[in-house]
Amino acid sequence: MTWDIDQDSVDPIAIGATLLGTGGGGDAHLARLHLGDLLRRGKRVQVISADDLDDDDIGCAVSGMGAPTVSIEKLPAGDEIWQAARSLQDRIHQQFGFIAIGEIGGGNAIEALIAGAYSDLPVVDADPMGRAFPELQMDTFMINGVKPSPFALADGFGSTAVMHVPDPASAERFGRALTTAMGGSAALALPIIRGDEVNRFGIHNTLSLCWNLGKAIRDTAHQHNDLMESIREYVPACLLFFGKIVDVDRRTTGSFAKGVVTIDGLEDFSASRMTIDIQNEFLIARQGTEIVATVPDLICAIDAEDSMPIGTESLRYGLRLHIVGIPASAKLKTRSALDTVGPSAFGYDMDYQTLHTR
Amino acid sequence: MTWDIDQDSVDPIAIGATLLGTGGGGDAHLARLHLGDLLRRGKRVQVISADDLDDDDIGCAVSGMGAPTVSIEKLPAGDEIWQAARSLQDRIHQQFGFIAIGEIGGGNAIEALIAGAYSDLPVVDADPMGRAFPELQMDTFMINGVKPSPFALADGFGSTAVMHVPDPASAERFGRALTTAMGGSAALALPIIRGDEVNRFGIHNTLSLCWNLGKAIRDTAHQHNDLMESIREYVPACLLFFGKIVDVDRRTTGSFAKGVVTIDGLEDFSASRMTIDIQNEFLIARQGTEIVATVPDLICAIDAEDSMPIGTESLRYGLRLHIVGIPASAKLKTRSALDTVGPSAFGYDMDYQTLHTR
Repeated sequence: MTWDIDQDSVDPIAIGATLLGTGGGGDAHLARLHLGDLLRRGKRVQVISADDLDDDDIGCAVSGMGAPTVSIEKLPAGDEIWQAARSLQDRIHQQFGFIAIGEIGGGNAIEALIAGAYSDLPVVDADPMGRAFPELQMDTFMINGVKPSPFALADGFGSTAVMHVPDPASAERFGRALTTAMGGSAALALPIIRGDEVNRFGIHNTLSLCWNLGKAIRDTAHQHNDLMESIREYVPACLLFFGKIVDVDRRTTGSFAKGVVTIDGLEDFSASRMTIDIQNEFLIARQGTEIVATVPDLICAIDAEDSMPIGTESLRYGLRLHIVGIPASAKLKTRSALDTVGPSAFGYDMDYQTLHTR
Repeated sequence: MTWDIDQDSVDPIAIGATLLGTGGGGDAHLARLHLGDLLRRGKRVQVISADDLDDDDIGCAVSGMGAPTVSIEKLPAGDEIWQAARSLQDRIHQQFGFIAIGEIGGGNAIEALIAGAYSDLPVVDADPMGRAFPELQMDTFMINGVKPSPFALADGFGSTAVMHVPDPASAERFGRALTTAMGGSAALALPIIRGDEVNRFGIHNTLSLCWNLGKAIRDTAHQHNDLMESIREYVPACLLFFGKIVDVDRRTTGSFAKGVVTIDGLEDFSASRMTIDIQNEFLIARQGTEIVATVPDLICAIDAEDSMPIGTESLRYGLRLHIVGIPASAKLKTRSALDTVGPSAFGYDMDYQTLHTR
């Protein structure tokens, strides 16, 4: 199946992607304005189901790299996301047949659509995270053995890099160093991938999911529907906490935003306190000392004022938040996947614990 | 004219290159062993005069990037210098006709010969510095408008990067960031250059000069000739100071070795003190408060024990040194060149002052 992204879809996709961003993936607002502008100027963005890709077709995944705190200060120049992908295409002397979404969360979902607009290539309705992750190797494509080399970065100011590396950890290390030198954010094209690999390893229909979730959340805001009911229409989910931010300890270091947010409970959660550890995304949520959700499950923050999901870059004292838990895709919870995306991959001496949504 | 580098030439070239390295350019010892081994195993290294290059032939300059303090700890893997150049050649889909020496000073002279051994390409007897400089844009090729893009880096552990950049400053910034991520040193291929450009902008016969200087210095050591007379046979030079190191304040930061060495005078210079500022290379020499030599002129340190020139990475308390001044090439002392390689380019609020060798 293929379909076109129209102007009316942009906002819902941005809202849903921000929810799935679990605090990260970069601010979607600027990307949304940019995509809206491209569509108004007659650019076309076509979406294709992962099932419908030709097995031997090749494309590459695209996303932004860097700290979300930077994404709201260093504005994208425009077509750097496609420039990164095109540098790869030039390097391997093969035309790409599609753009894969490198990370569905936050602005990255929209960035992939922008690459589609500039390249006239269809964007696949799937991604290798079903959320956002802070590091480049945290990706079902690479977890399943897709090679990260060559990969490309573009800074939006005329500089591009194409790198050959022996492993995903090298790609992360060199990509991170260049991203930092590029001002803290950059466009990333990685990995080069075949149609059958996207189909087998990708998490399907996550762009459609963004659109559905975004519409449901927007309707909640407008029609005062129950937020959790709206979300549960499309994904299993539970309300982990409701409260007011009393402290944000966050610093941007090495192109990561790291820190802890502390939330004092309100209503059903009064007399209780939640702390959530952050590395670009929300990683571990604790109520008091009890761990209630861990990476790779999604820990999502929704502003109680307007029912809109927000990224870690927008956390501030006094904000009232619903904290919602959504189970990660089963593809992220195999034993080998948890080595790359579970708590231990972030240096925690704890096991992944299943999120119970009922 | 073309000629072959033989086993007996390796040591003199390394000695002369260390002198012209003005403290930097990386330790020549390991590179010398490596080149010697390649020649023993039958590899051939041919040298060609800049005058004899075909105008339209293209090649690229090669050198190491990083702090000399790292060059004695992170050993080169072998052929990374040619891997960097080959990545560029692959990128532009044109066979190179020659290897240019990116920097004659220190291990870099030998690294270019190693690239010649691996590639079977002749190495040009010229370079764009006539010495060593800490930053990538400090180069008569780029000062005269040769574009630094694309350029390539290789780490010797299977990772290479090819970057397109809008200007030399971007090449320096991104090259430095990647070099740091690569462990503090990397092989650099930059710029891609035509034969006529090497001929017009390069400083000619600097490899031959290394060989001549190296032989003269070695003979000084063996035959107790006068050091200054031996050097003056090939270049104008003056003895700036003789003394004993009483302090080395040096730190490796951002792939630069920065600091100050303090030398208390002996014999003719007793009761006097010299301080020399370092950024990989020796930049500014002061006797007391009087400035006696400034970049781009060469400030060279020679160990009084064995009459061998040494790099800033080998400075240590108690070492007795001859400090020798050698005027830089006129190509580095035009007004526009001084903007890039004079004291102000290193943040000093001082003008270049002519070094008087008589």
